Amino acid sequence: MPQAPKIQKIEALPTDEAKWVEFQKITWHDQTGKERVWEAANRKTRGKAGVDAVAITTVIRHPKRKPSTIIILQYRPPVDAVCVELPAGLVDAKETPSDASVRELHEETGFKGKLTFISPTIVSDPGLSSANMQLATVEVNLKEGDTEPEQALDDGEFIERVVVPLDELYERLVQYDKEGKTVDARLWHWAAGMHFAKTML
Amino acid sequence: MPQAPKIQKIEALPTDEAKWVEFQKITWHDQTGKERVWEAANRKTRGKAGVDAVAITTVIRHPKRKPSTIIILQYRPPVDAVCVELPAGLVDAKETPSDASVRELHEETGFKGKLTFISPTIVSDPGLSSANMQLATVEVNLKEGDTEPEQALDDGEFIERVVVPLDELYERLVQYDKEGKTVDARLWHWAAGMHFAKTML
Repeated sequence: MPQAPKIQKIEALPTDEAKWVEFQKITWHDQTGKERVWEAANRKTRGKAGVDAVAITTVIRHPKRKPSTIIILQYRPPVDAVCVELPAGLVDAKETPSDASVRELHEETGFKGKLTFISPTIVSDPGLSSANMQLATVEVNLKEGDTEPEQALDDGEFIERVVVPLDELYERLVQYDKEGKTVDARLWHWAAGMHFAKTML
Repeated sequence: MPQAPKIQKIEALPTDEAKWVEFQKITWHDQTGKERVWEAANRKTRGKAGVDAVAITTVIRHPKRKPSTIIILQYRPPVDAVCVELPAGLVDAKETPSDASVRELHEETGFKGKLTFISPTIVSDPGLSSANMQLATVEVNLKEGDTEPEQALDDGEFIERVVVPLDELYERLVQYDKEGKTVDARLWHWAAGMHFAKTML
């Protein structure tokens, strides 16, 4: 029976104990030649592709329904909240980001789709970390009568998927926030861009 | 004479030396009751508002020009690249995120605008850090003959501002990437959302 995830304790992480992340002191010379120091976090898991992660904007087309996308809800310990995010995941050591996109979408949501676009490498929070990613577009074409597929989650993954018509996405995110969930900044910016194009341009 | 910024050395950052960021070992119980550990980064600078940072989507209106926005280019040591980003900055200890948005836009770009919207608190990279932010919309209304204002940068800040027509933003980001600059994920998602609304819906 699933129970609410709960943080037991938060301790300082000693540098030599960190397995997934490393913490760096970067000494650099700025544009005037002055020596400065920057503190940053770095994932240790980056593989051959040179890209930490992918996220997926899915377009589900169906003969009788509005074009929809998939978002996921999962608990995230660093923010102690259920986050609303695009399907996403780390790129495996020898995998391409394009392959990772189709694989992650399938594992997290059950949907098999066709990659139609992948962005250049972009950086998630470049004032704080070296974390980078690519944003993929994957299209799923459904026929009438197709049923919802099963998710293929790893053991210990608790991920809720939600299919949302694209023209309702922005309002849905506003609603999730009101309910106490926390929206991922990248998903928010994508939905805000669509909303902005509709209302401001 | 400005020179290219350059990294001298990257060392492991000892936990007790970190000034701006802290590194956490989070012990939590998952949905099955199993004890797990998560490694995360945390900013130490969060003030009264409970929000680390703001970013600003600006809309510049002018009687004779297309609606435009402002993006900024600056060197970021964690990724050792010139990043293309929305104007943004940390919220001061006693400041509201709304006030920070108008202040940061003015300091980084010289433009004084009116806040028309601010998002709920969203999280920048919730698998890796607790970093959070709010995304503001600020409108700048120019009259014919208004000249470009001066930036009000802090000592040691080297920030290039670029005014871009909103309907050219996505292509401009693609171009910056080709030139070897690195686009911030949140800016990319916002522009991709606008582009997606125009081309896919």
